[in-house]
Amino acid sequence: MFKKILIANRGEIALRIIRTAREMGIKTVVVYSTADEKSLPVLLADESVCVGPPASNQSYLNVQNILSAALMTGAEAIHPGYGFMSENPDFAEMCREHGIVFIGPTPENMHALGSKAGGRAIATAANVPVVPGTGVLDSVEEALAAAKQIGYPVLLKASAGGGGRGQKVIRTQDELAKGFNQAQEEARLYFGDPAIIMEKFLEEFRHVEVQVVGDGKGHVIHVGERDCSIQRRNQKLIEEAPSTLPESLRQELLAAGVRLAVSVNYTGAGTLEFIMDRDGNYYFMEMNTRIQVEHCVSEMISGLDLIRLQIEIAAGLGLNLTQDDVKLHGHAIECRLNAEDPDKDFRPAAGKIDDVHFAGGPGVRVDSHCYSGYVIPPHYDSLIGKLIVHHDTREKAIERMKRSLQETVIQGPKTTIPLYIRIMDNPFYRRGAVMTNFLKTRMEM
Amino acid sequence: MFKKILIANRGEIALRIIRTAREMGIKTVVVYSTADEKSLPVLLADESVCVGPPASNQSYLNVQNILSAALMTGAEAIHPGYGFMSENPDFAEMCREHGIVFIGPTPENMHALGSKAGGRAIATAANVPVVPGTGVLDSVEEALAAAKQIGYPVLLKASAGGGGRGQKVIRTQDELAKGFNQAQEEARLYFGDPAIIMEKFLEEFRHVEVQVVGDGKGHVIHVGERDCSIQRRNQKLIEEAPSTLPESLRQELLAAGVRLAVSVNYTGAGTLEFIMDRDGNYYFMEMNTRIQVEHCVSEMISGLDLIRLQIEIAAGLGLNLTQDDVKLHGHAIECRLNAEDPDKDFRPAAGKIDDVHFAGGPGVRVDSHCYSGYVIPPHYDSLIGKLIVHHDTREKAIERMKRSLQETVIQGPKTTIPLYIRIMDNPFYRRGAVMTNFLKTRMEM
Repeated sequence: MFKKILIANRGEIALRIIRTAREMGIKTVVVYSTADEKSLPVLLADESVCVGPPASNQSYLNVQNILSAALMTGAEAIHPGYGFMSENPDFAEMCREHGIVFIGPTPENMHALGSKAGGRAIATAANVPVVPGTGVLDSVEEALAAAKQIGYPVLLKASAGGGGRGQKVIRTQDELAKGFNQAQEEARLYFGDPAIIMEKFLEEFRHVEVQVVGDGKGHVIHVGERDCSIQRRNQKLIEEAPSTLPESLRQELLAAGVRLAVSVNYTGAGTLEFIMDRDGNYYFMEMNTRIQVEHCVSEMISGLDLIRLQIEIAAGLGLNLTQDDVKLHGHAIECRLNAEDPDKDFRPAAGKIDDVHFAGGPGVRVDSHCYSGYVIPPHYDSLIGKLIVHHDTREKAIERMKRSLQETVIQGPKTTIPLYIRIMDNPFYRRGAVMTNFLKTRMEM
Repeated sequence: MFKKILIANRGEIALRIIRTAREMGIKTVVVYSTADEKSLPVLLADESVCVGPPASNQSYLNVQNILSAALMTGAEAIHPGYGFMSENPDFAEMCREHGIVFIGPTPENMHALGSKAGGRAIATAANVPVVPGTGVLDSVEEALAAAKQIGYPVLLKASAGGGGRGQKVIRTQDELAKGFNQAQEEARLYFGDPAIIMEKFLEEFRHVEVQVVGDGKGHVIHVGERDCSIQRRNQKLIEEAPSTLPESLRQELLAAGVRLAVSVNYTGAGTLEFIMDRDGNYYFMEMNTRIQVEHCVSEMISGLDLIRLQIEIAAGLGLNLTQDDVKLHGHAIECRLNAEDPDKDFRPAAGKIDDVHFAGGPGVRVDSHCYSGYVIPPHYDSLIGKLIVHHDTREKAIERMKRSLQETVIQGPKTTIPLYIRIMDNPFYRRGAVMTNFLKTRMEM
């Protein structure tokens, strides 16, 4: 097993990784930007190395400085967390070249699945349904012809995008003609790659995803699925496991996820994202070749530590679990506590947290890098913590989440907590019939 | 189900009960002394009623004021927590007379099991071994004769005592002759009953206890056992579930606990306390007819909410679980976070908590009524919270506890946290071979 690993991330996920590493007796080095000097992961890690100024591209995306920090501190492996370098196959390659283990899938896995176009091809080959759509579109003319065949509305997507960014709904021929070049330009700007694909746009759908773990030798298990349909601007807010799908459909979806991951000999933890319409038709969207923010709900229902599995697999210990070893119990819900004002279109609310007091008691888990007096830097995302609950049934888990939200006190910035309390009381949410347009259509937002 | 219950307790257990009540949609009234006006349960309950000044006998033991508060607020039931009124059959009777449900066993259960002498007789009748000992001793002469037969050292115990209080080790005839009347006097003073019993004193033993829940109609389940051997002055510090006993012995102990509880038609949650010598001989000590501080470890391995079961049974909904429904998973450990100085013989350290930051992440549960700025009143016990962890195996649970203790920050009073970190690294503790003299014999304290 590794003696020391470097964590190339910040915030709650850096702390999450420190926790598991500590429990495994592994020393941790955390890199940080000058804006994160007083963050909890920096205070708690065994070592910390400043890798640059606040701007991500000069710190958390600064490949040279991060690799230097690893070499300098003698870290044998790098955990990239989510975001930043986590889905960058070139970074994984460079780690390999420097004799450092990248805790994640192989660069080959990432290349194959990293683009939406590549993912579609792999899914089709593995007999997993995909939304009617195209490969990379090279011109407006090609795009117009494709849209005619698929039928409006369509979705333009940056092939290299993710997390809902770089997407645009196109409802008419005119919009497409005007918007295509701009979409290419934005994709180039945000993701360093102008490649655009097109998909049929479903007005209403659920977002359901399958958590898998593979050993890179063809053995893949799933750790159930998660419903992440409550979103704002394609960003997830509330996730739960399991989904409320009928059992036969759940099993079909889980099998599709495993089939796809097996087909690429997947290594480590990954998530296959699907959308599903009201009739239960499901379509593979993309694979996230990393740990996800919402992995905690899968941990709560399985009792597994997914970060530990990632580290064990990266260290060459393999995956010592069969599908039968994965026992799922009860229901888990996660609320992402964001420093945002839900009444002002989720405007970020950086600044000082004067006082924070999290919920406790049975079935409650808190993952947060915040503490009383912590100043939220304005440079990164607005996630200040995750509140996760577990109970026997979905109904009881909702009650537990509601009381936990009511117990939580965050003084200083506006947060999404009041919104979540209202959602827990919403009859559509309670019924479990939630689509990604929930906030707009069921909450009058 | 009840619409409103009153909580006749304070501190973390009052908060614990509020949490479950909220999840069940039950309104809560909490009573408090003037010293607890700003405590978290008072801030979080739906209603609160001051029942007296700081001294317990004028507030938390003030039967008239507590019953008046219940009647005045329309509470249909009273949850007594642990300590205070929880094992007082007269209080349970008075509740019944006033048409208020006492959330706990019947007064008959409490009368039968409430005294150590009564408990011994019931155990013997149920074929559960007890430590060689006596019934109530009326005179020094009787005591001396009994000690001669049992063999020194012996233990004098207040029959009405509990939680390790009111016990005295007697090593010689002389000590007994001198100490007997004083023991009677102390028992009268502390427990309102001078009755003294004598037992053989085991120099070294484990403390293992069985958690049971009964429906009052002869159906009793166990929720596993707990090892609570790490104690100071007969007060538990660290508890875990399951114990490290061999499986056949575990099953024998669990069966003995259930047999005894069935024999009294036990109602609600209760704990049968056993001591066990190095050879695996176990002896029933007493039954605690209430929820216990350490109930959380049983909740962590079973996924059950014991407070919910107590409330459901009290409300007449019965116990809708068979023994087969109780599935125990993994290993849980609880550390009692006390505001005490372990280096100064656990001297209580009341005062202001300037800053508190609890551990989080996977498998961690925190039950605490403290917050940053909270002033610990000097009038009650020194428990400021409980840190509970769960993991697949005992070894991993110990690592998780260690990192959770390291993450926890309590600024202000001295606490037992540094001691617990050392215990987690202690080779005897790690091996699981711990007796109640652990602190003295294995930690050089």
